Amino acid sequence: MSNRTPVKAVRRRKGNRSQNRQRTKAVAPAYIKRDIPFYQLLSEEGLVHLEQHADWLIQEIGIEFRDDPKALEIWQQAGADVQDTRVRLDKGMARHLCQTCPSEFTQHARNPSRNVIIGGNNQVFAPVYGSPFVRDKIGGRRYGNIADFEKLLKIVHQLPSLHHSGLILTEPCDVPVSWRHLDMVLQHMTITDKPHLGSITEKSRAQDSVDMARILHGETFVDEHCVIMGNVNTNSPLMVDRVVTEAAQVYCGANQGLVVAPFILGGAMGPVTTAASLTQAFAEAMMVGAFTQLVRPGAPFVMGNFLSSMSLRSGAPTFGTPEPVLSNMVIGQLARRLGVPLRCGGSLTASKLPDAQAAAESADSMMSTALGGANFVLHAAGWLEGGLATGFEKLVLDADRLRC
Amino acid sequence: MSNRTPVKAVRRRKGNRSQNRQRTKAVAPAYIKRDIPFYQLLSEEGLVHLEQHADWLIQEIGIEFRDDPKALEIWQQAGADVQDTRVRLDKGMARHLCQTCPSEFTQHARNPSRNVIIGGNNQVFAPVYGSPFVRDKIGGRRYGNIADFEKLLKIVHQLPSLHHSGLILTEPCDVPVSWRHLDMVLQHMTITDKPHLGSITEKSRAQDSVDMARILHGETFVDEHCVIMGNVNTNSPLMVDRVVTEAAQVYCGANQGLVVAPFILGGAMGPVTTAASLTQAFAEAMMVGAFTQLVRPGAPFVMGNFLSSMSLRSGAPTFGTPEPVLSNMVIGQLARRLGVPLRCGGSLTASKLPDAQAAAESADSMMSTALGGANFVLHAAGWLEGGLATGFEKLVLDADRLRC
Repeated sequence: MSNRTPVKAVRRRKGNRSQNRQRTKAVAPAYIKRDIPFYQLLSEEGLVHLEQHADWLIQEIGIEFRDDPKALEIWQQAGADVQDTRVRLDKGMARHLCQTCPSEFTQHARNPSRNVIIGGNNQVFAPVYGSPFVRDKIGGRRYGNIADFEKLLKIVHQLPSLHHSGLILTEPCDVPVSWRHLDMVLQHMTITDKPHLGSITEKSRAQDSVDMARILHGETFVDEHCVIMGNVNTNSPLMVDRVVTEAAQVYCGANQGLVVAPFILGGAMGPVTTAASLTQAFAEAMMVGAFTQLVRPGAPFVMGNFLSSMSLRSGAPTFGTPEPVLSNMVIGQLARRLGVPLRCGGSLTASKLPDAQAAAESADSMMSTALGGANFVLHAAGWLEGGLATGFEKLVLDADRLRC
Repeated sequence: MSNRTPVKAVRRRKGNRSQNRQRTKAVAPAYIKRDIPFYQLLSEEGLVHLEQHADWLIQEIGIEFRDDPKALEIWQQAGADVQDTRVRLDKGMARHLCQTCPSEFTQHARNPSRNVIIGGNNQVFAPVYGSPFVRDKIGGRRYGNIADFEKLLKIVHQLPSLHHSGLILTEPCDVPVSWRHLDMVLQHMTITDKPHLGSITEKSRAQDSVDMARILHGETFVDEHCVIMGNVNTNSPLMVDRVVTEAAQVYCGANQGLVVAPFILGGAMGPVTTAASLTQAFAEAMMVGAFTQLVRPGAPFVMGNFLSSMSLRSGAPTFGTPEPVLSNMVIGQLARRLGVPLRCGGSLTASKLPDAQAAAESADSMMSTALGGANFVLHAAGWLEGGLATGFEKLVLDADRLRC
């Protein structure tokens, strides 16, 4: 656990700039400030029911924390019930620990007019993340490479509806994994001045990302401000591996942000019913949120949710279906009650092409993302084929819709 | 004004059947019973503001009722301020007159298991209405004919997500206008056993439709039950022609239903701002609702809304844009406060093909229709090209999505 000053939650755009750096004032927010209500799908009774069941899961079943003895040590010091790699918390303890999470915080960009506030009534859109393939009309579907990555990043920089450049616009598969993250982060730091994410796949790569941010923004500034975030998935069901806990120690330990999204396809990594898989997702995310606050109280944490459905016949993931539409709305309610910023949704689809299926699924997915009130929206543009491919045309079509 | 017994609002499926006819009981409702909340876009303050402005429009500006001296006579008898063809009502009078509208009512089908309840938490989907053209992949775009009409109706009959067969699936342009309505209504009465609409274009055609319903359902039954409805548009801005007032006298006079939808493209038939055009639409529809209740208190009335946007550069109508999405939600709030069933939305698009544009616009349009709580949804499937064409493939694609 670090003893650095925690990042303070900021309520207004003004007054959260470093006093020791010359940064010009932004003219208008580089993100969306909502002024429409959230959609309240569940009543108080329904929400309490889900919260109680999540507490029961954490207390009685517990969550596995694998391959990271340091993480278990942190849990033990906090008074958790740790048996082998299973961690259980008394009812309410996870929620209590999450109380130090800032309800909103600023992620600073190289260009301060691009700073984004994550949380509250703000919505920040970032492009698709993590696709091994790219697709365009002329070149068809192929493995992504560093040239594609660069082209995509240049497009993202030009699209005003994308407030954040994310990180893995496609996997640059022609760059060896050992230094791929360095090339990606460097491109984000040089090609665009929007805020971006860092690498998470291995502890040293997370550390490299934070170290690069220190070079770019200056050590003192980084100590006091969030300038980079990691984005991790739990290993659902009910398992957290060291990719997550090490990323939490590196990013949150350095006062930077962590986005934690249980990736659950109902019927595969969680129950088929939306209520039950939502509960599982909420328990997993809240547990990692609690862990980030043990690492460093006040570190920026974004509760993620990636709940979708799959064909129980073929096992194929499906997107834009009623289950994720409903879950986007409910997780929004749960996150606001917990007082933490939310990542969910995006322009998701199972379709391989930017066709009518892709457009309808992406529209439903994004409309529920907006009404559910997601604060940080990864995959807001460019997603195709269940996330296997980044579509060049889809990126532009989605971004155009995001401006509406 | 008729002195027949008004249709009673029904709250439950049971008990609203005629006691003098042998009709089997339905197994499950042939429509959607909502159990999710409505989306409350506007606060109480905003809603009151719109209502007050609509009252002001009716009191100070008034609504033109043209080419139907009988309509003006009805207004005069009711105590309205009638100057030439301009009708003005004291503040609150239109709302007061609408109090006899049933908040929900049953439209009976030939097959009672197809009966629909319009109003309350129920949603009834009907196909596209009124397109002069049809389009399919093989035949391309062409004027609709009676053979297309028949094919479309057979498809609509087979689609379980369409609870109502509407009427003009395409204009059968090869049938002379003087008896076109007879052929259309006859086909609905024989090819499908779903509930349907009647003709409205001229008084005698409305009367023919009601007379045919009397032959089909029996005079006594029709006197006491709604079995057919007319669907009319006001002549916006702030004008109601005799197509509307005569249809009201024929349908409502015979205890049948009337759907009244101001068709407003912001910037053409109404102001460009959503709030102002919504107010105008609400004033027009409430005024015609009041008129239906003067014709026959308790007659089934459905408040319609067809508010979209247009390109101010080209004059081309646009659909699925933010303006109609917002207006669907607000008109739902206003209709529920007035206590009348609502028609709005549909799977609308400006696109000429069932492509990505069509899918995205239709998805946004239909999602807001659902969250806004529309009770009767014309154009729920098959709409293309701003309503100029009925798409065979679009009909099936939309209907498939409606089942989600």
